[in-house]
Amino acid sequence: MGEFDLIRRYFQRPVRRAVLGVGDDCALLAPAAGMQLAISSDMLVQGRHFFADVNPRLLGHKALAVNLSDLAASGARPLAFTLALSLPQADEAWISDFSQGLLALADAHECELIGGDTTGGPLNICITVFGEVPAGQALLRSGARAGDEIWVSGQLGDARLALEALLGKITLPPELLAQTRQRLEAPTPRVALGLALRGLASSALDVSDGLLGDLGHILELSGVGATVDSRLTTPLIAASVNPLWATSQFGLDLQQQCTLAGGDDYELCFTAPAQRHAEVLAAGLASGTAVSCIGRIDAKPGLRLLGADGQAMQPLWQSFDHFGVN
Amino acid sequence: MGEFDLIRRYFQRPVRRAVLGVGDDCALLAPAAGMQLAISSDMLVQGRHFFADVNPRLLGHKALAVNLSDLAASGARPLAFTLALSLPQADEAWISDFSQGLLALADAHECELIGGDTTGGPLNICITVFGEVPAGQALLRSGARAGDEIWVSGQLGDARLALEALLGKITLPPELLAQTRQRLEAPTPRVALGLALRGLASSALDVSDGLLGDLGHILELSGVGATVDSRLTTPLIAASVNPLWATSQFGLDLQQQCTLAGGDDYELCFTAPAQRHAEVLAAGLASGTAVSCIGRIDAKPGLRLLGADGQAMQPLWQSFDHFGVN
Repeated sequence: MGEFDLIRRYFQRPVRRAVLGVGDDCALLAPAAGMQLAISSDMLVQGRHFFADVNPRLLGHKALAVNLSDLAASGARPLAFTLALSLPQADEAWISDFSQGLLALADAHECELIGGDTTGGPLNICITVFGEVPAGQALLRSGARAGDEIWVSGQLGDARLALEALLGKITLPPELLAQTRQRLEAPTPRVALGLALRGLASSALDVSDGLLGDLGHILELSGVGATVDSRLTTPLIAASVNPLWATSQFGLDLQQQCTLAGGDDYELCFTAPAQRHAEVLAAGLASGTAVSCIGRIDAKPGLRLLGADGQAMQPLWQSFDHFGVN
Repeated sequence: MGEFDLIRRYFQRPVRRAVLGVGDDCALLAPAAGMQLAISSDMLVQGRHFFADVNPRLLGHKALAVNLSDLAASGARPLAFTLALSLPQADEAWISDFSQGLLALADAHECELIGGDTTGGPLNICITVFGEVPAGQALLRSGARAGDEIWVSGQLGDARLALEALLGKITLPPELLAQTRQRLEAPTPRVALGLALRGLASSALDVSDGLLGDLGHILELSGVGATVDSRLTTPLIAASVNPLWATSQFGLDLQQQCTLAGGDDYELCFTAPAQRHAEVLAAGLASGTAVSCIGRIDAKPGLRLLGADGQAMQPLWQSFDHFGVN
């Protein structure tokens, strides 16, 4: 099947929200009056962001999910996206599954595929996503103020735990592996929470490279510091922990490190004034998303981490860097 | 150098036209009142769209040029773009040269880099570009009407000629190779012409996969046919033709096939009512771009090609398909 047939069969659908969709030189999008367009782009590469044998349906989901997560972090409502896809061969079954996973998540968020590109080459998926947000209301990384509380959504570390297991570094009980693998391969973008945090959160971002490193971006851009109490980060591994590895060289350190610096979480980390604590809890409830307060913004620069004993501690891993060592 | 330092050093610059640029989860863009956003995305893969040893400065230029060419074909004025880049290693000299070529063309078109992604992986460049066009004035592929004239900008076939030489299939005299190679590696997006054609052209697209195949998209979406007179396509190879290969198996056929189906031209092919012939010529003059009338739109479906003798002929090559044979 040729490039154009491929696009037509799996990716071209009638236009709903855009002015013009797939099939011309450009798509046309018209944000509503008073709205700004929030734009983000993420590239997923085989062997770096996913395994060669990943389920293509899950990969389609994840490729869009990580982009929707950026919209969520900006408090933007999804509108549309473009898909550029480099494929080693035109494997129709694979493409069909990939498009189903992709478009199911797109439909769930009323986010329309409006254009893109396909080519031959090593497997690479690049999505650029568009959302809208009322002018001046986007959540930024730069708005944290001393005294604000620091929050995270959902549960951190699951994805990294699954990754360690899939890489053969640890062994997980099957049920825990299935559960964490789902979080690695099909993360849930926190779009509803992002919308509920408009006008409430003072800063926000999505945790893709690990909590501490990503929180560092908020601190840097806001010109503040922070104290994070690792005892308040959501417990990652419940009673189901396999005693074999809980007592291994990884042990409790692994739990802590996955939570604080694991990466691939696609949860939101955000700050809000302490006096609005109850409103944040209500926003979590209203959006069906668990939220946990894990620390506080300080005027003093730097990121301080309190360990199990309430004393300052050093995390073992650094944040994920795509040109770094891990 | 890590990912974030890399972005900061080579790709992060003060925001000028966007509301928010590189460095947050999303960039923010606000089209002016009454404007629609034209969006296009192109992915360039090593070994498929460029050679591994291509000059990175030219590659930076071309990666943006092919995207600006899509804006030109829509009659949109460039505003901004995102860049997603997968690199085998963080080669700082390469990145520096690439960014210079990229940003020089961006500056020439006042098109701002507002966000993106970098990762490790096989070399892959994905740019999504944003332009603005007054609501309802975008040039589409679907507007050609019987009786319209068919036009192309500039000169077709140069890029393919250079490619054939670089692949060792033909030998070109050094001067001609240098000239055509420049067209292959650093195409000129016809942005000014696209703007001048607003309200004048009835349809338009950019020629990236070869004239006849791309014109076919206009015919299909407009529900019309066409007659193209190959004698009117701009002569590609002047008196400088190397007699060695002019008489080879490629010979005159090569000239014709490069022109009609070569690909990678990034010229505009467009239609306009015949009675506006002089206005099209004036638009070409005003935008400093050569334009040639090469045929006419017919009510009868199908694409008819007239050869050197004025009789119907069949082109030897088909249009470029990224999953096809060439």
